[in-house]
Amino acid sequence: MDLYTLTNIEEGQKLLKESYDNIKRKVELRKINEALGFVLAEDIFARESLPQFSRSTVDGYAVLSENTYGGSSSLGIPLKIAGEIPIGVESKAVLKNQECFEVVTGSMLPEGSDSVVMVEHTEKLSGDEILVYRGLHEYENLILKGEDVRVNELLFKKGHRLRFQDIALLGALGMDFIQVESSLRVGIISTGDEIVPVSKKKLKIGEIRDINGPLILNRLRAIRGVEAVDLGIIKDNKNALEQGVIESLRKTDVLLMSGGSSIGAKDYALGIIESLGHSLFHGLPMRPGKPTIGGIIDGKLVMGLPGQPLSCYFVYEKMLAPLFICGEYIVKASVKGTLQRNIASVSGRLDFAPVNYDNGKVTPIFGKSGLLSPLGKGNGYIEIPFLKEGLLADSDVDVYLF
Amino acid sequence: MDLYTLTNIEEGQKLLKESYDNIKRKVELRKINEALGFVLAEDIFARESLPQFSRSTVDGYAVLSENTYGGSSSLGIPLKIAGEIPIGVESKAVLKNQECFEVVTGSMLPEGSDSVVMVEHTEKLSGDEILVYRGLHEYENLILKGEDVRVNELLFKKGHRLRFQDIALLGALGMDFIQVESSLRVGIISTGDEIVPVSKKKLKIGEIRDINGPLILNRLRAIRGVEAVDLGIIKDNKNALEQGVIESLRKTDVLLMSGGSSIGAKDYALGIIESLGHSLFHGLPMRPGKPTIGGIIDGKLVMGLPGQPLSCYFVYEKMLAPLFICGEYIVKASVKGTLQRNIASVSGRLDFAPVNYDNGKVTPIFGKSGLLSPLGKGNGYIEIPFLKEGLLADSDVDVYLF
Repeated sequence: MDLYTLTNIEEGQKLLKESYDNIKRKVELRKINEALGFVLAEDIFARESLPQFSRSTVDGYAVLSENTYGGSSSLGIPLKIAGEIPIGVESKAVLKNQECFEVVTGSMLPEGSDSVVMVEHTEKLSGDEILVYRGLHEYENLILKGEDVRVNELLFKKGHRLRFQDIALLGALGMDFIQVESSLRVGIISTGDEIVPVSKKKLKIGEIRDINGPLILNRLRAIRGVEAVDLGIIKDNKNALEQGVIESLRKTDVLLMSGGSSIGAKDYALGIIESLGHSLFHGLPMRPGKPTIGGIIDGKLVMGLPGQPLSCYFVYEKMLAPLFICGEYIVKASVKGTLQRNIASVSGRLDFAPVNYDNGKVTPIFGKSGLLSPLGKGNGYIEIPFLKEGLLADSDVDVYLF
Repeated sequence: MDLYTLTNIEEGQKLLKESYDNIKRKVELRKINEALGFVLAEDIFARESLPQFSRSTVDGYAVLSENTYGGSSSLGIPLKIAGEIPIGVESKAVLKNQECFEVVTGSMLPEGSDSVVMVEHTEKLSGDEILVYRGLHEYENLILKGEDVRVNELLFKKGHRLRFQDIALLGALGMDFIQVESSLRVGIISTGDEIVPVSKKKLKIGEIRDINGPLILNRLRAIRGVEAVDLGIIKDNKNALEQGVIESLRKTDVLLMSGGSSIGAKDYALGIIESLGHSLFHGLPMRPGKPTIGGIIDGKLVMGLPGQPLSCYFVYEKMLAPLFICGEYIVKASVKGTLQRNIASVSGRLDFAPVNYDNGKVTPIFGKSGLLSPLGKGNGYIEIPFLKEGLLADSDVDVYLF
C-alpha cells in the first residue's frame, strides 16, 4: 500500500512559482491594443512627456494666479481678455499682467499663465473685460507639461504584466508596438478509459463526457495573455499517455493532466513525470484536491490534477490560477458574509466548500467531489482554515466569488 | 450660467439597468465552447442524466454495505471476488450476498451493490477472497445515476449568463450548441479637437493622443460576451458628432462618448442625446465623474462620459462595468486594508481614490482627475462614502483591486 507524503500548500505554491518563473518564453513584437495581460520583455522608458504642453482642464480663462488674489463672490477682479486660444493648436501667446486668455478644456496655455479660472467663476462684461469672482492658487485647473509622465521616466520594468491603464498610457505616449513575452500556452489532457468528447452525441453505458477539460479551458479563456490549448482525451494506457505528454509539451508551456494523479494501479501520471522529468510534490493537504502532482519536464511546468471535477477545479484555483492571472500568489478579493449552517472539517487540511452568497448570507452547498453541479449551484466558495475542525453557523466568512 | 441637477448614484444605476435590460439583442446558435460570458436566450432542461450510470469514485471493490458491518482495522470481513468491472464498459454483473466486484474510479457498478470499499481498506488473500477492514455506509464512494443532474431538470433560465462551470455542465450533457444572445457591442467615441489617434507618431504642439478610447476598450476586452467596438475620434463639431452618433448606433448596443458631457459651450453630448432620443440624467454626485450623461436613443443605451481620464474610468467602473460583467449591480469583491494617510472629501458626493495596496497597507495616490498615471501607480481604488467628509489614517478600508 502506497502513502502520500503531503507538501504544505505554501511550500507547493513556492515550488510552482519557481518553476513557472523559469519557463522559457518566446518574445514577440505586439500591437499595444492587443497586449492586454501580456508580460513586458523589456524595461519601458517614456520617449515623450505627457502632456507635451501645459493644458487647461476646464473651460475658462488662463490667468496669472496672483492677479486674482482677493477675488471672491462679492468682489470681482477685472482682467482684460487678450485673445482666445482654440483647442488642438499651438499657441505662441504670452500673458501680460492683468490680462487673460479665453481657453477651453484641453487648450494649450499661454506663456506666463499659471492657472485657469472656470467660466462659472467669472462674469463677462461688455467689451473685452471679465470679472473674476475667485482667488486662484498656482497650478489650479491645469495640467503642466510632463505632469502625467516625464520624458525618459522608467514606466515599467521587464516582467510587468500590462493592465488596461498601462495600455492606455503607452498608447498616449505613442508606443504602438512593444516587446512582450508570447502568450502563455496552457494545455490540458483529460485521461480515463470512460471519458469521451463533449461532441459525442449518444453515450454507451459506462461512458461519460469530458468535464475537466472544458472546466479548466473555460477558466483559462477568461485570462488575457493566456492561450488555452485543448489537448483532448487520452485513454488509461501508460505508453499512449507518455506519448501524449511528449507531443503535448511541444504545444504548451504548462501541461495539465486530469485524472491518474492518485496512487492506484492505473495512475500513470507520477510515473510519467518522473521518467521524463522530475516531480516537485505528490499530495497536498487540501480537500478536495489531495491527489495532486507538481512536476517539471524539459523546463516546463507539468501538473497532475485529480480526476474528480470539484477537486480538479479547486486545485486549479488555489495552486495555478493566481500564477496565470498575475504571476504570483497575492491576496484574493472577497465579499464578507455570515455562514448559515455549520460545516465540518478536519484539522490538518485546507477545506474548500462551494457556497451561495446572497446579500450577506452564505449557504454551503454540500456535494461529493465527484460531482460538478455544486459549482454551478453556488456563486463562490469559502476556505476552512488548516487548523480548524469546521466553521459554526453565524461565523463571518470570506467568500471568493466565481 | 447652467447648473446640474444631480441624480443620486443608486437612482442612476436603476435607470441604466432598466435601459440595459431593454436593449433588443439578436439571438444566435453558438458552440458551447465559445459561449463563455454569453447570455442564454432559452430555458435549458437536461436531456440526459449525469452520470447515466452509477459509478465508483475510488479504486476498490463494489459491495453491499450491510455485508461490511462490523469491519474495522482489527477485524477483516471476508468477501468473495465475483469478477472485475473495467472502466468505460457496460456491465451486466449482479452482486450476490457476501460477494464483491473489483472496480476502479469511474467503473460502472454492478446491480445490487450500494457502496465501494477503497482498496486501501482491504487485504487481498490468496485465491479470490478479500478482507474488508472497514464498515461502509450506503452510497459511500460512488455517484448514483442522475446524482449530478436528473434528466428533464431545469438547469438554467433564459437570461442566465454562462460561467465556466455552466459550460462544462452543458458539455457533459452533450449540449454542444445553444441559443444565446449575440455579444453585447459596446463602442466608444472619443471627442475633442485636440485628440489624435494613438498611431500618430509625431504630435503637433496642442495635440494629445487618445487616452479614454484605449482605456475603456481595454477594460471591455477583459469581459467575455462583450465586443469592444473602437469608434475612433470625432472633432468638437455638433454636426459631425451627431452624424457620428447616428452611424455608430448601427454598430453598437451601448454607445459611449467621452468628452463633451459637461455644460460648456462646446459640450454637445447632451444636446445630441436629447435631439435624437432622451436623457435619463445629467450629473452624478461622484468625484471624479460629475459631468456624466445617461440617455437612450432608439432603445440603445447612450452615455456621455467625462473627458478627464480618471473621471471617465470611475464612471465606467461604477455605473457600467457591473452591467456588462454580470447584468446587475452586485456587491464587488475587495481586500481589507488600513489607510496610511488622511484623505479629505466633501459630504454629499461619493469620492473615488486610486490607492496602492501592499500587504494590508493602503496608500492613497493623489493626482488630478485629468491625469492618467494615478491609475497606473496604484493597483486598486477605494470609495469614500457619500456622507463622509474624508477618511482618517488608520481607518479600515475596502480596496477594489484593478
